[in-house]
Amino acid sequence: MTSCSIGPLLHEGKAKRVHTTDRADLVAMHFKDDATAFNAAKKASLPGKGRLNCQIAALLFEHLQREGIESHYLGVMGDDWMICKRLRVIPLEVVVRNWAAGSLCRQMPIAEGTALTPPLLDLYYKDDAFGDPLLSEARLMRLEIVSADQLEAIRKLAFAVNQALRRLFASVALELVDFKIEIGLTADGQLLLADEISPDTCRLWDQGVLDQRDRILDKDRFRQDLGGVVEAYREVHKRVQGVCPEARVYR
Amino acid sequence: MTSCSIGPLLHEGKAKRVHTTDRADLVAMHFKDDATAFNAAKKASLPGKGRLNCQIAALLFEHLQREGIESHYLGVMGDDWMICKRLRVIPLEVVVRNWAAGSLCRQMPIAEGTALTPPLLDLYYKDDAFGDPLLSEARLMRLEIVSADQLEAIRKLAFAVNQALRRLFASVALELVDFKIEIGLTADGQLLLADEISPDTCRLWDQGVLDQRDRILDKDRFRQDLGGVVEAYREVHKRVQGVCPEARVYR
Repeated sequence: MTSCSIGPLLHEGKAKRVHTTDRADLVAMHFKDDATAFNAAKKASLPGKGRLNCQIAALLFEHLQREGIESHYLGVMGDDWMICKRLRVIPLEVVVRNWAAGSLCRQMPIAEGTALTPPLLDLYYKDDAFGDPLLSEARLMRLEIVSADQLEAIRKLAFAVNQALRRLFASVALELVDFKIEIGLTADGQLLLADEISPDTCRLWDQGVLDQRDRILDKDRFRQDLGGVVEAYREVHKRVQGVCPEARVYR
Repeated sequence: MTSCSIGPLLHEGKAKRVHTTDRADLVAMHFKDDATAFNAAKKASLPGKGRLNCQIAALLFEHLQREGIESHYLGVMGDDWMICKRLRVIPLEVVVRNWAAGSLCRQMPIAEGTALTPPLLDLYYKDDAFGDPLLSEARLMRLEIVSADQLEAIRKLAFAVNQALRRLFASVALELVDFKIEIGLTADGQLLLADEISPDTCRLWDQGVLDQRDRILDKDRFRQDLGGVVEAYREVHKRVQGVCPEARVYR
């Protein structure tokens, strides 16, 4: 693997900064300690979160690659930098839900913790100005951001990620309640998993804990002011680290 | 046609009261002057609205029946009562949009007045407690309120209603921007158009008027505090009446 050096800021998101590198086909993502929720209405800085999310995402992307699911991930640099293939990210939030939680329970008559069999796939238009609204298939087609074939490929990818991660998390006594992924396109039109997968983007419940507040090991601890956010992320990292090879360093 | 007499209140909605009749298979709908918007956050009484909506809905249901589209409608009784087949109404709001307006423009990057070709069908779960949320097909299937075959039939019905009404309104220089219908099931499982079709449930723009505020002849006059609500409904009634036979009286 050849090395790269980090260039100017390309884009700043709520939890990450994306920089160019000296290689036109690569970007460097810096994981921030910033936490936001409810479309950035709630904000905080959580020291240590960036590093943990970077390391967790690296382990998960590598696990998915071993399972045959390609992503933009190439390796980590330092504690909180990730080197990735440069993609054109599709403005979609692709959510897979195994158990009912969060906004679903405010929008549908489904109690929190209800098993969703088969898992429910929700697509949201990623645009803060519109509040990341839920999309129907007809609305998505109207947006003209993916073709019907790409949508079908995205669905398959999302369910494949779900199956692989659900099994991995179950092996360390974590229930994968739901998660959000983003998808990008390479210059030659290949669909790749993008962004990150971490306790910021997954709901994870500790299988050994019955109390609903105590078992939460994800960003809901921040959303619901439960405290111990970074401690929960550290616990997730510790468990995943226990069953995965060390994250590869990009050099 | 046999007569019926009106019995006790069965259900009170925001714009109508539904009463039993002495015939188990029929209901009587009373059209109220009450206007509500934004999930009843805004309320008013508009004298004359109930009568106009009842008469407009009667003319439209009769027109649709002549075009081969069946509904619960049987006839009017007095000015503001409608006799209908009793249905099990499916808790869905089925919206067909020919031009972008209203919530669509707040949820998607589409400017008001953009032509939607093909027309966009939006399905909402009809439940005030949840704020009538938009449904994806996957969420709708999860609700288990219609089968996949029924959904397909509802789509076809909605587009057939759109085609018939668009043509009728165009013949009196009205643009059918969008509309909401509800669907019910008879005891033997037949899908029928239910509820009402009126300026409360349609957006109608006067084709001869260019000014955006002036051309609105529907409930948006109430939502946007434009005044002249009942006058606009009267204009719609006058125009539709000009090209339709008189509404039949149920007796």
